[in-house]
Amino acid sequence: MPADFRSQYESYRQMVEYGLAEYLPNAQIAQAKLLDAMRYSVFSDGKRIRPVLMLAFCETAGGDARAALPFACALEMIHTYSLIHDDLPCMDNDDMRRGRPANHRMFGEASAVLAGDALLSAAFETMLDVDYVGDTPPAAVLSAAHRIAWASGLYGMAGGQLLDLETETFDQSVEGVTARHLLKTGALIETAAAVGCELANASREQMAAAASFARCVGLAFQIRDDLLDEEGDPMVTGKLTGGDRENNKVTFLTLLGRDECVRIIDSLTRDAVGYLTPFEGHAFLAWLAEDLARREG
Amino acid sequence: MPADFRSQYESYRQMVEYGLAEYLPNAQIAQAKLLDAMRYSVFSDGKRIRPVLMLAFCETAGGDARAALPFACALEMIHTYSLIHDDLPCMDNDDMRRGRPANHRMFGEASAVLAGDALLSAAFETMLDVDYVGDTPPAAVLSAAHRIAWASGLYGMAGGQLLDLETETFDQSVEGVTARHLLKTGALIETAAAVGCELANASREQMAAAASFARCVGLAFQIRDDLLDEEGDPMVTGKLTGGDRENNKVTFLTLLGRDECVRIIDSLTRDAVGYLTPFEGHAFLAWLAEDLARREG
Repeated sequence: MPADFRSQYESYRQMVEYGLAEYLPNAQIAQAKLLDAMRYSVFSDGKRIRPVLMLAFCETAGGDARAALPFACALEMIHTYSLIHDDLPCMDNDDMRRGRPANHRMFGEASAVLAGDALLSAAFETMLDVDYVGDTPPAAVLSAAHRIAWASGLYGMAGGQLLDLETETFDQSVEGVTARHLLKTGALIETAAAVGCELANASREQMAAAASFARCVGLAFQIRDDLLDEEGDPMVTGKLTGGDRENNKVTFLTLLGRDECVRIIDSLTRDAVGYLTPFEGHAFLAWLAEDLARREG
Repeated sequence: MPADFRSQYESYRQMVEYGLAEYLPNAQIAQAKLLDAMRYSVFSDGKRIRPVLMLAFCETAGGDARAALPFACALEMIHTYSLIHDDLPCMDNDDMRRGRPANHRMFGEASAVLAGDALLSAAFETMLDVDYVGDTPPAAVLSAAHRIAWASGLYGMAGGQLLDLETETFDQSVEGVTARHLLKTGALIETAAAVGCELANASREQMAAAASFARCVGLAFQIRDDLLDEEGDPMVTGKLTGGDRENNKVTFLTLLGRDECVRIIDSLTRDAVGYLTPFEGHAFLAWLAEDLARREG
């Protein structure tokens, strides 16, 4: 029953909202403008896909989602920082994000750079805080935080962002664009699944299955993003349409056309669901994969 | 004998260079331009003051400096990322750094933003890597990495950077400028001392003494920086003179004048050395405080 899955999604999402509010509280400090800029972008109308995926994998693998919450929220902070920096004039130069003016349009470029920087630090402050990670053994905390550090940096998201800018020199074939997206959006999504499983002491087979699932979902997610960038409803996506075209980006849409994109999204989603067999009670994750493939925003 | 201390400094610095080369190796990857930009700024002619301070405190407190190396190098990566972002056109708009073109002048603004971002991630990848931290107990790794996360973010360096930009609204008295510098440069310097001590299982008294020492040294360091910004030799400082004046910054120099600045630096340095009594064999640290107070670059 999709309605139940939707409410399950909302309850995970609510956990994330509570977590973020706890980990990034308001404060009376001299540098309040920086905190305001951080909170402006974090407490916007985000779908919280990455943290929800982590919590869901943790629970599906038999763990306690609450143990994953600091890591899930850290991942959302990292995702948010990447959006802030990505929107900067020297990057994609986007004015709107999540239905509101981009961070640099509200707070100025310098504060937006610092807000992104400080959110990346805040992600690690959160994950490495013994008051938050509680009973999780220190070695498990280290492993999870190390995965997240790796996924956010040179060999993950930041590396993918760089490739995204290299429109002139980087391989613009389907393979090249796929490689770029596996870093830019795939790394955090794969890490969400991996950390969720690891904190639940998932089996090696489950870890591998989660990685394959996340890789398919992440790629389908990005192709759907390319479609929405061109033909989405700004009232639903929260950002203006046609940004990729303006930036002359080579995307799955420009390479393959609309119909082939839709076909690949369906195929990747079926594959993703197929990978879930090592998890008992994986109906929610299967629904989530399908829901993301159909999303309008 | 200052010559011996100088060579001790150089041997710590050499450890840091080896560490950075190990933790940030060259690689044949699609996103090589990002790695190039990261390495360009890291492997420049930096003095490595923060990591040397950490290693020296670790050894002075009876620990093994090698255990502190991943954290020391992480701190240097964070310091380097802050310089890259600080030099951006939307921030201080500096063209020269460490005697070479600033990162954004070499690689472009977008890559410089990403290089800073990726260095912050790399700092945590390094500190949280079990292959690097070896025998240090996971709980100690967590504590050290958490201190460094905290010091780099909203309540430390990034917060101080924001105050540095708020020239119009923020308290520009001596107290206000002091508060700004305790965050902007003080936080990383205090953390260098704290993590060095902690990894050596220093006593509570030593931890407190190290914090007081670092607070004095950090402030003296910043006042010296203000002087050098106005009257330093660009061939020694590696950056152009008069940047603060061009950016209309209120500094200790503009507030107090040259003579008073020199007097305060001396007084802070004497205080710093006085705090070292709980450490046997602290001659190197005392020399270091005095050397930093006299530095020309």
